[in-house]
Amino acid sequence: MTQAAFLALDWGTTNLRAWTVDADGAPLAHREFPLGVSRLKPGEAAAIFRDTVRPALEAQRLPALITGMAGSNIGWKEVAYVDCPADAKALAARISLIDGEDPRVGIVPGLRGQGIGGPDVMRGEETQLIGWLAQDAARRQGTHLVCHPGTHAKWAVVTDGRIERFVTAMTGELFAVLTQHSVLKGAEGDADGPAFEQGLEAAGDGGALAARLFTARARVVGGGGLKPEEVRAYLSGLLIGADVATTPGLLGVKSDTPIALVGDGRLCAQYKRALDHAGVAAEVYDGEAAVLAGLHALFKEGALQ
Amino acid sequence: MTQAAFLALDWGTTNLRAWTVDADGAPLAHREFPLGVSRLKPGEAAAIFRDTVRPALEAQRLPALITGMAGSNIGWKEVAYVDCPADAKALAARISLIDGEDPRVGIVPGLRGQGIGGPDVMRGEETQLIGWLAQDAARRQGTHLVCHPGTHAKWAVVTDGRIERFVTAMTGELFAVLTQHSVLKGAEGDADGPAFEQGLEAAGDGGALAARLFTARARVVGGGGLKPEEVRAYLSGLLIGADVATTPGLLGVKSDTPIALVGDGRLCAQYKRALDHAGVAAEVYDGEAAVLAGLHALFKEGALQ
Repeated sequence: MTQAAFLALDWGTTNLRAWTVDADGAPLAHREFPLGVSRLKPGEAAAIFRDTVRPALEAQRLPALITGMAGSNIGWKEVAYVDCPADAKALAARISLIDGEDPRVGIVPGLRGQGIGGPDVMRGEETQLIGWLAQDAARRQGTHLVCHPGTHAKWAVVTDGRIERFVTAMTGELFAVLTQHSVLKGAEGDADGPAFEQGLEAAGDGGALAARLFTARARVVGGGGLKPEEVRAYLSGLLIGADVATTPGLLGVKSDTPIALVGDGRLCAQYKRALDHAGVAAEVYDGEAAVLAGLHALFKEGALQ
Repeated sequence: MTQAAFLALDWGTTNLRAWTVDADGAPLAHREFPLGVSRLKPGEAAAIFRDTVRPALEAQRLPALITGMAGSNIGWKEVAYVDCPADAKALAARISLIDGEDPRVGIVPGLRGQGIGGPDVMRGEETQLIGWLAQDAARRQGTHLVCHPGTHAKWAVVTDGRIERFVTAMTGELFAVLTQHSVLKGAEGDADGPAFEQGLEAAGDGGALAARLFTARARVVGGGGLKPEEVRAYLSGLLIGADVATTPGLLGVKSDTPIALVGDGRLCAQYKRALDHAGVAAEVYDGEAAVLAGLHALFKEGALQ
């Protein structure tokens, strides 16, 4: 029977996912908890980890490596950002050990880069990027554009195995606040429905977004043929269409390889649909596999020994 | 003593403002009620008007003219949109009388135009545009660009006294939902503070808005020198800067005259600040005077006689 080598955690804002992992990076057991850092009381993280996560995975004696918002100022321990450009070695060298934990517990630092006229930041996505690079030696050569869709979509340029720079688009959060709190609430409806393509068309070149967004209202009340139950799909297409049309341009890079979409399967499929519509080649990669590969790559650098 | 000629109402989503007005359009008395149509029960508008508004202004025997969301499907009576291009005569001809009201009560129709790839709509702002045109004969000659800032900012092209076309940017609503419900909540702070100019800079050409918005977060947590209490001003500058940089371009018009900002004084001052920063000439006009002038111009067309 394969032996677990370490405990891997993706501890985000909303959820905590944990795996026991063998020395080759293969997951052995997996548990998910609705215990993201936004749901914890101050100081509660250590007890959650010891009394809930470790027992659930029978991992009392394993070193643990944690990525995500656990390293933020509302997490377990604030870990300073590493600056771009950064590779697996640079991130591993700055893993921060929690005082007094035995076996060792380390938190992966977030990453900071030069964004639009100022700093940009990520926590957790850097581990998926490192994992995606670790999965295939060909990805560690040349320049690639990688997109991690989500609440805060991250678009990153990686060159020769290093994360060079990145920019964040709050596409997912715009969708959430507009469909929950604005005049665009519309009705219940499938965000993947056929009106998604109408939204892609309405995105145009992605400019004048505040005006384009209002078309989701005007087409319902002004006789434009959009039904209230189609607004969610239309808005999803419009926001993702605007993201793929404008955000990569901020990075000023042309990649010879297809854009790599790494993350949640449903979100990646929506971005793929938008990129297909724009005639841009893209490939989808599983985000969970990437985070595990990233934690394994960082673990192998020896930070917990 | 001057005699009241009619009762003028601006009945919006949130508030109801009413004036008694003399035959020359001068206001005689004014009352404001927190009784916008979003706060009414279905069917309640008629009783509010008769039992609250008329008595408060001692206007039981005056004909009344109403503009705004009272003409929407959540108002008093749904009134069909008039299509662009439209002037005061065209709008007055389609004022809809309420059955059974004596003295007469009329509701001004909203306006529909061709927006971005589909219809765009307004209800209430058309009356301010008509009023702004009525205030000065010079405005009824040639082409002018008029902006009504607000929850849903309206940018309109008027030519020779007609409203030719317009486009809506949901700039104010984006500010509201992002500062109330998103990661950009930040802290309390004056939306007119000096960080407004930093936001104008961050708006750049207004493209890639979902990415530019995230800079309001990244500059706080990533060491970019933005304080949480400055986020509101920064975000206000960013959104208004992006609006003035991109929305007029959708209308495809160059006006020889300064952009006319018609509406709430504080909002108009913010837009003026953004246009000054962009080197674009603009002049500010009082929105309340414009709505009164508009209702007076429409009343004079004789729809209530």
